[in-house]
Amino acid sequence: MTVNYDGTRYNGFQTQPDGNTVQDHLELAISSMIGERPKIHGSGRTDAGVHAVGQVFNFWTESPIPEERWPLALNGRLPRDIIVTGAREVSLEFHSRRSAKRKTYRYTINANQYPDVFLRHMQLHHPGKLNIQAMNEAFQHFVGTYDFTTFASRYSQKQSHIRTVLETRMEVDLSQTRPNTRDQGILHFYITGTGFLQHMVRIIMGTLIQVGEGKYTAEDIPRMIAACDRSASGPTAISKALTMWGVHYDEVDL
Amino acid sequence: MTVNYDGTRYNGFQTQPDGNTVQDHLELAISSMIGERPKIHGSGRTDAGVHAVGQVFNFWTESPIPEERWPLALNGRLPRDIIVTGAREVSLEFHSRRSAKRKTYRYTINANQYPDVFLRHMQLHHPGKLNIQAMNEAFQHFVGTYDFTTFASRYSQKQSHIRTVLETRMEVDLSQTRPNTRDQGILHFYITGTGFLQHMVRIIMGTLIQVGEGKYTAEDIPRMIAACDRSASGPTAISKALTMWGVHYDEVDL
Repeated sequence: MTVNYDGTRYNGFQTQPDGNTVQDHLELAISSMIGERPKIHGSGRTDAGVHAVGQVFNFWTESPIPEERWPLALNGRLPRDIIVTGAREVSLEFHSRRSAKRKTYRYTINANQYPDVFLRHMQLHHPGKLNIQAMNEAFQHFVGTYDFTTFASRYSQKQSHIRTVLETRMEVDLSQTRPNTRDQGILHFYITGTGFLQHMVRIIMGTLIQVGEGKYTAEDIPRMIAACDRSASGPTAISKALTMWGVHYDEVDL
Repeated sequence: MTVNYDGTRYNGFQTQPDGNTVQDHLELAISSMIGERPKIHGSGRTDAGVHAVGQVFNFWTESPIPEERWPLALNGRLPRDIIVTGAREVSLEFHSRRSAKRKTYRYTINANQYPDVFLRHMQLHHPGKLNIQAMNEAFQHFVGTYDFTTFASRYSQKQSHIRTVLETRMEVDLSQTRPNTRDQGILHFYITGTGFLQHMVRIIMGTLIQVGEGKYTAEDIPRMIAACDRSASGPTAISKALTMWGVHYDEVDL
């Protein structure tokens, strides 16, 4: 199944002791629909406050309800900030996380003078002057297969920090910039990779912002990566501006 | 001054007995800034739940604070869903409402299969089949100078219901429609006029939706207008999908 959610009110996707996760709500809705409560498997956890468009999860059920009936039936049982947008029967081998080939995240910086009153829950507002060209150049330096220890949480428990970033892309939306102001546009940063470490996108973004502010240059990025040291990079940028933007599978795995 | 607000939490713009209006919050912020509490004049009231981009208000003050300092100082004192975006000293003759030459409103219908989880607070979700071409044609029939009693609240206390609609325009955003689904796009309806009656845009929209559903045809609109009877038109569409989209003044009046 695919699900979109506004992460503002939730403690992330994956079930955890404090409760109030997207997974909890999905499992509750499923159980209220079919009487059994299967454990669902998400394509990846998202941090508290992080949003998703096209998060994927799977579960095993003997329910005879046809796939096309699931989304509406679940949405009627879910809070309005969690919306199931698709359901499909897949092979027993399929696993949302293990079968995923690529994931894309989007991070949004509002570099206009004032916050966007309607999208403030999903933008980092940065009215100060940013060198956008330098940020774009720096963003390109993340493409490749590297040990990303510099850009992972110190608490990461993964055995290997080697990951492959396939593509980075910056979009500048100038539709709301007003003439004769310090408005710099809405900046969307898209990053696609085979997998990401804990806080990786947010640390990359915290570092890019410092590039934009002139604290680092684009050319510092390769040196930072090579250092394999969390203290060589910038801060972890706030979670609310991050959206899981899609998960990709090979058709044969579905 | 110009102000944007997310109207979700408020009882409309204009001060009223139940409190919690945008005007109340603006006056409170101004008084906390300069010690006096001037009464502000908005370009128009908006209903509870209605949003605004570029609502205009004016007030009289002897404060020596330069105009460019006001927005940031006020925003620091306002809830985060009300954002002042501009301030300008104007002539003593200026009045936000009486000097306004034109106003534009936008109404948004999400005709895709599922709600937009991030913009659900400002869209009417209508997943059912709509004849979008007929809605667009019907929308054109509102341009002109007419007695709009059919499209005004029964409780309107205006002496004259004659108003001039200058332009209507429909935009269809297909960026989120998925192939092989019943998604029909996000429909934005823009309407510009010299002034609007109570609930006028929402009744026009409630009627257009019924045109889309096939209950009326575009050609029924002139007959409805001529009837001068509220019961000849459709229901009042929900407020949350309506945004005051701008107020226009002649430069000489500022």
